[in-house]
Amino acid sequence: MSASAISFAKQNEKRFLEELKELLRIPSVSTLPEHRNDMEKAANLVANELKRIGIEHVEVVQTEGHPLVYGDWLHAAGKPTVLIYAHYDVQPADPLDEWLSPPFEPTERNQNLYARGAVDDKGQLWMQIKALESLFAAEGKLPVNVRLIFEGEEETGGEALEKFVHEHSERLESDVALICDTELFAPNLPTLCVGLRGLVYTEIEARGAATDLHSGSYGGAAPNPLFALCEIISKLKDEDGRICIPGFYDQWASPTDDELNAWKSLPFDEEHYRKTEVGSTVLTGEKDYPVLYRTWARPTLEVHGMAGGFTGEGAKTVIPAKASAKVSMRLVPNQNPDDILEKFTRYLNSIVPKGIQVSIKVHSKGKPVVVSTDNDYIKAANQALREVFQKETVYIRSGGSIPIVEQFRSDLQIPSVLMGFGLPDDNIHAPNEKFHIPNFYKGIESVVHFLTILGR
Amino acid sequence: MSASAISFAKQNEKRFLEELKELLRIPSVSTLPEHRNDMEKAANLVANELKRIGIEHVEVVQTEGHPLVYGDWLHAAGKPTVLIYAHYDVQPADPLDEWLSPPFEPTERNQNLYARGAVDDKGQLWMQIKALESLFAAEGKLPVNVRLIFEGEEETGGEALEKFVHEHSERLESDVALICDTELFAPNLPTLCVGLRGLVYTEIEARGAATDLHSGSYGGAAPNPLFALCEIISKLKDEDGRICIPGFYDQWASPTDDELNAWKSLPFDEEHYRKTEVGSTVLTGEKDYPVLYRTWARPTLEVHGMAGGFTGEGAKTVIPAKASAKVSMRLVPNQNPDDILEKFTRYLNSIVPKGIQVSIKVHSKGKPVVVSTDNDYIKAANQALREVFQKETVYIRSGGSIPIVEQFRSDLQIPSVLMGFGLPDDNIHAPNEKFHIPNFYKGIESVVHFLTILGR
Repeated sequence: MSASAISFAKQNEKRFLEELKELLRIPSVSTLPEHRNDMEKAANLVANELKRIGIEHVEVVQTEGHPLVYGDWLHAAGKPTVLIYAHYDVQPADPLDEWLSPPFEPTERNQNLYARGAVDDKGQLWMQIKALESLFAAEGKLPVNVRLIFEGEEETGGEALEKFVHEHSERLESDVALICDTELFAPNLPTLCVGLRGLVYTEIEARGAATDLHSGSYGGAAPNPLFALCEIISKLKDEDGRICIPGFYDQWASPTDDELNAWKSLPFDEEHYRKTEVGSTVLTGEKDYPVLYRTWARPTLEVHGMAGGFTGEGAKTVIPAKASAKVSMRLVPNQNPDDILEKFTRYLNSIVPKGIQVSIKVHSKGKPVVVSTDNDYIKAANQALREVFQKETVYIRSGGSIPIVEQFRSDLQIPSVLMGFGLPDDNIHAPNEKFHIPNFYKGIESVVHFLTILGR
Repeated sequence: MSASAISFAKQNEKRFLEELKELLRIPSVSTLPEHRNDMEKAANLVANELKRIGIEHVEVVQTEGHPLVYGDWLHAAGKPTVLIYAHYDVQPADPLDEWLSPPFEPTERNQNLYARGAVDDKGQLWMQIKALESLFAAEGKLPVNVRLIFEGEEETGGEALEKFVHEHSERLESDVALICDTELFAPNLPTLCVGLRGLVYTEIEARGAATDLHSGSYGGAAPNPLFALCEIISKLKDEDGRICIPGFYDQWASPTDDELNAWKSLPFDEEHYRKTEVGSTVLTGEKDYPVLYRTWARPTLEVHGMAGGFTGEGAKTVIPAKASAKVSMRLVPNQNPDDILEKFTRYLNSIVPKGIQVSIKVHSKGKPVVVSTDNDYIKAANQALREVFQKETVYIRSGGSIPIVEQFRSDLQIPSVLMGFGLPDDNIHAPNEKFHIPNFYKGIESVVHFLTILGR
């Protein structure tokens, strides 16, 4: 069965890629209100494709935010049910002038497909659909039951999926979730991600004077909320990257010795990583922890943008009346986002400079997750990858956050298999995002094998 | 002589006001290219009026930016030469919907003339011309020699006047400059501004990684230039507003005890100022200095805007590759902008966080100015104001910067008399700008007296 699905997939590679380009041409940027129609358009394209290949009960579910796409095929009696997840929304494309080809005009260069969303996550979503299409085409049926749920708010921390999963946990009843939204540790190295950091993403707004003031007339007497934010932010983390919020590390749990030892044997060269991935003069962060430990299993805090005052060309001598900063924290087991948010808020209020009022808005929250590698589904995924890559799979964590993994665990009581085919230099969330085209094809084959193995 | 010039001025008040309205109807907004013709129109109106009243060598000087208007009358042998300065350009009028009457249709209400440029600075420019007309009308000559130089780029920081003064310093040879572009400290309180703060306005650019990175994947290893700028900026000034740059206060000179005592007797209520002008919960800055001292005679440092990363709606988990901050310092006697810039740069380079490269761009530099009140010209101005207001003149400083004052000092080696007739609530640079009409008349009389006294 798997063999003929694989040959179907191989024969149709070019078509699959052209179809993906069509999805990539829709600028479904979930965070920008002007792309609301594009979100609908992308959701409909995905839903229509699901119907076309033979998925049943396909529905574009309207929500308070962007639509969800649901579909299922439940005719493999006695076989497990796999909940297939991906997201069709993408990050904003700015800064536009750093793209070598337009972000929403997919372009092939050197075996890569360049476009916003190429690998995060439209390419991997399309991979899943094309694996199902190949299985249907070869056998007229699937080896397992599947439910598919695709969301349009992954990049904005929207609540539509969270609410849907919470309210329809019986309808979504499954045995395991398959999430394709991660990457290989290195080119051609089959990889399963078994840990994710949690997230608390906030926006701090600071207010000072009643209106914008002239710094000549009022400098020395009026509070400056932008300066105040600099003072606040500089007190959140010390120069070695250790977070200064009291109690922040209270619940922190270290990885096991086995896990730490496995990480040591990964093909990771710190100097190569610094030069080719980060491109900075030195790496930063907590000296006492190796890089993978710091980015996978230690909490961090970053500022992402600061608004207020004047940032145009030239000089304007303004003391802004208000300013804001986007600040997020990545969490690791066993930190709880609500507990961390409370400690963050309490500490922040204790360091607000004179004359400044501060308010905190929360954009998103997600718990950290770690999956045991002893799990049967992880073992099946390992085997599927071995068939495609002809190599032993490595287990890694990711520094990023996929809040739905934790929700699948808590609301549906199922583990997730995080099988992704991106590469470390794919520029996700940055200009010139790409998907290595051979990985798109290997991804399709791996999903075919995974579902086939589960159906045995 | 003065008496009959004053009576001519009084008899012609209504006509003077109607003439001013004509100048105010020309929307000479220097910063907006679509008003280029209006700039010419305003310059020509002013030049024609100078010719009409008897000024010689009147010229509309074309520059790379907007035209200058020059004229002189040099037949008072053995008497001082006064360089009369004002500007005919105005700020943009927006937000238009907040004006109670159209900004370029001058309207009288409650003894005020409402129009963009009414007090800043067309009304005060017209005051100067009308004083000269009154002196000519009464005596057929002027009590002193005068040169007039009116610019059209004061609101844009244009370089036409700076270049002209620098290149024609011999042609402009004078004994004192009279600048009418400031305000009374309080209604009916004759005021001379004898000090201005200097300025160094910089932009700090910080670079970290080679491209924007995802904070999930790289948070904990990649340098964050926006966080670095927060760290840097928070180290530039302590929480009480004292600047931490080594040597920053080395050249700082305190005002004299006389000056400080005079400030104490000014009608200034800190609580009223906080509530009505600043509108913050408390005033900030160096505790050991009163508000007027802090804003007039202590150096300050402000951040005006920070660019980099993501500041749109919602959440983007980016570690920006670069970020920048606009930071300015106001300087007081005897601080030198070049020396301060050097110390700023040296200190900044010493506190750059790991993995960050910093570069500094300078947008503008200007020296602080203080004029001794012992100066004969200031004494003459004081006496002129006393004759008009029947009150003792107060000496104040301004926290802002008027770069031409320092240039007159350095290129022409002359002091400036800053005699202005605006009021603190005249809404300069804001909707509903006005000139209190009695102040327009008092301004004309004050200039008549000032020139007459200098001619004795």
